[in-house]
Amino acid sequence: MKILCFAGSLRSGSLNKKYVGVAAGILRSMEGVEVRTVDLADFPMPVFNQDIQDKGFPQAVVDLAAEVKAADALVISTPEYNGSISSVLKTTIDWLSRDPLNPWPGKHVCLLGASPGALGAVRGLWHSRQPFEVLGCHVYPEMSGLPRAHEAFDAEGKLKDGTSQERLKKLLTGYVKHYLR
Amino acid sequence: MKILCFAGSLRSGSLNKKYVGVAAGILRSMEGVEVRTVDLADFPMPVFNQDIQDKGFPQAVVDLAAEVKAADALVISTPEYNGSISSVLKTTIDWLSRDPLNPWPGKHVCLLGASPGALGAVRGLWHSRQPFEVLGCHVYPEMSGLPRAHEAFDAEGKLKDGTSQERLKKLLTGYVKHYLR
Amino acid sequence: MKILCFAGSLRSGSLNKKYVGVAAGILRSMEGVEVRTVDLADFPMPVFNQDIQDKGFPQAVVDLAAEVKAADALVISTPEYNGSISSVLKTTIDWLSRDPLNPWPGKHVCLLGASPGALGAVRGLWHSRQPFEVLGCHVYPEMSGLPRAHEAFDAEGKLKDGTSQERLKKLLTGYVKHYLR
Amino acid sequence: MKILCFAGSLRSGSLNKKYVGVAAGILRSMEGVEVRTVDLADFPMPVFNQDIQDKGFPQAVVDLAAEVKAADALVISTPEYNGSISSVLKTTIDWLSRDPLNPWPGKHVCLLGASPGALGAVRGLWHSRQPFEVLGCHVYPEMSGLPRAHEAFDAEGKLKDGTSQERLKKLLTGYVKHYLR
Repeated sequence: MKILCFAGSLRSGSLNKKYVGVAAGILRSMEGVEVRTVDLADFPMPVFNQDIQDKGFPQAVVDLAAEVKAADALVISTPEYNGSISSVLKTTIDWLSRDPLNPWPGKHVCLLGASPGALGAVRGLWHSRQPFEVLGCHVYPEMSGLPRAHEAFDAEGKLKDGTSQERLKKLLTGYVKHYLR
Repeated sequence: MKILCFAGSLRSGSLNKKYVGVAAGILRSMEGVEVRTVDLADFPMPVFNQDIQDKGFPQAVVDLAAEVKAADALVISTPEYNGSISSVLKTTIDWLSRDPLNPWPGKHVCLLGASPGALGAVRGLWHSRQPFEVLGCHVYPEMSGLPRAHEAFDAEGKLKDGTSQERLKKLLTGYVKHYLR
Repeated sequence: MKILCFAGSLRSGSLNKKYVGVAAGILRSMEGVEVRTVDLADFPMPVFNQDIQDKGFPQAVVDLAAEVKAADALVISTPEYNGSISSVLKTTIDWLSRDPLNPWPGKHVCLLGASPGALGAVRGLWHSRQPFEVLGCHVYPEMSGLPRAHEAFDAEGKLKDGTSQERLKKLLTGYVKHYLR
Repeated sequence: MKILCFAGSLRSGSLNKKYVGVAAGILRSMEGVEVRTVDLADFPMPVFNQDIQDKGFPQAVVDLAAEVKAADALVISTPEYNGSISSVLKTTIDWLSRDPLNPWPGKHVCLLGASPGALGAVRGLWHSRQPFEVLGCHVYPEMSGLPRAHEAFDAEGKLKDGTSQERLKKLLTGYVKHYLR
């Protein structure tokens, strides 16, 4: 089972890059799971504009579409902006859905979210499900929002709190088990 | 009452640019209403990235924030992408909310949507409400989705169908009346 | 300005009945505001069923529709069930929308929510907005979710925490001011 | 594979009872699929009220929980009321989630919707996903909204339009195939 991991954020110090890094570490310890992590900052896309598409897809779209196509499942940790999906995640979904390869239909997706606030990106997570589901993805029902994420990681990017680590591990174990059933 | 109109789309032939153009024409005929229309393509923004913000806001963000700040109310016609908000509208909302001017709180917003499909962008419209409402905007309850929009306009950009024109006029009349109450 | 307050819950010890009680107390101290509180348990309705409607509206529907009609605005505190609207609130909305009086269009609504959980009913609150907005209600953008509500009230039903009290007062002040503008 | 079918409506002439009946007929023709259809009107429940729960679960809750528990997957056709979930479907979800048997987690759910309107219950369908997903159900991404449903069925309850029939068959085939993978 090939799982592609990335964060729905571009900035270098992103809490969601840390959180998906923790998730990738947990997944790597599971048998039969092959993990690949990419950084959306390495696939720079303009905001979706059909006039650009008509002149040819940006190379980053073509490349990331191939990465998603090659995976069986995704684990995405994504911030909430203004109670909804992050700009870069929506841009990524929309560009790849237009690519001739459209890699989304039938893909399994697990959504995580880290946020400095008390609500752990919950509104953003629920809004992020819908475009994936419209595109035919199987979005895993359980999601994991990490509140007060700015205080959650140690210097090595590990979760300080054992309970949060265990909860994430349980979620990812269930996700992999559901895929492999 | 100053109303700023724009489309949540970048491409030059956008159906939503046409639809918001029709709305602007209707609004211009109303007494006491001052209408200004802008094109988001004239405010080119990268996808939101806090690393860019930390180096200084793009001029387009500063300029569009001032346009929104100067308005009492907005009329936005926006496409649906994959059953959710358009990338460019989300990017615009997020960038402006980070600008020191943050022009959103308390602003009145009326959402329209044009779509070639049968559902008239209805899922996208409902998803587009939430970030505005999280930011403290009063989003007018009624919205107008125009289905089969690729066949809806004549060569001059007018709505061919008198019923659609009347429905839009009624909606905008209610919106202005509600603001001016 | 006449404000009708109720909770989206039936049980006698409801945390949301307490929370809307606190809200009503705050509203009563405001000038020009007339407050009336009702208990949905006094308006017992069956689950919506058009076969029942065809035989005649239950008296509780007729009576509550008149209560809502007589108000300018509503303050509703509602629990979240399974991440969505409460059964009794949805039943109430649906029955009243079918009543010949349909009292919803144009009504101002402020939504509060109390929950024993950490998220303060946030998913339920966002789901509860939509049917009101579809019916033409102006739902105030700001909402107040009270997390860990089972520990939030003293024996007299007052909020123990001064910050929660102040936050609610600020929200309700803004709501009334917006209505009276 | 045992599939339980029901409509999210109580009235006897319900369009959604007809639509789920068509779905059940299609499912019955598939190999390895065992179909059972129930009518929520045969499981009469009051609106959810914890005071009632505290005195003992209504027999209808206990009985329907057992029906759902015994199934591997569900096909539910549900109307939209005021742009959101139907009262009876929400009541059913909430009551069963409180039952000691809580049959929802891990269950596969396919949502259909019939509506006399042009939008085919699309807002209601998207709102209906959320409580199921919060409860841990795998809601199939594709859904089927049947617009203008009051004109869609012949006297024997069959779909007049071959395209609608084929679309539904394709959706259900994909659903069963996904479950059996």
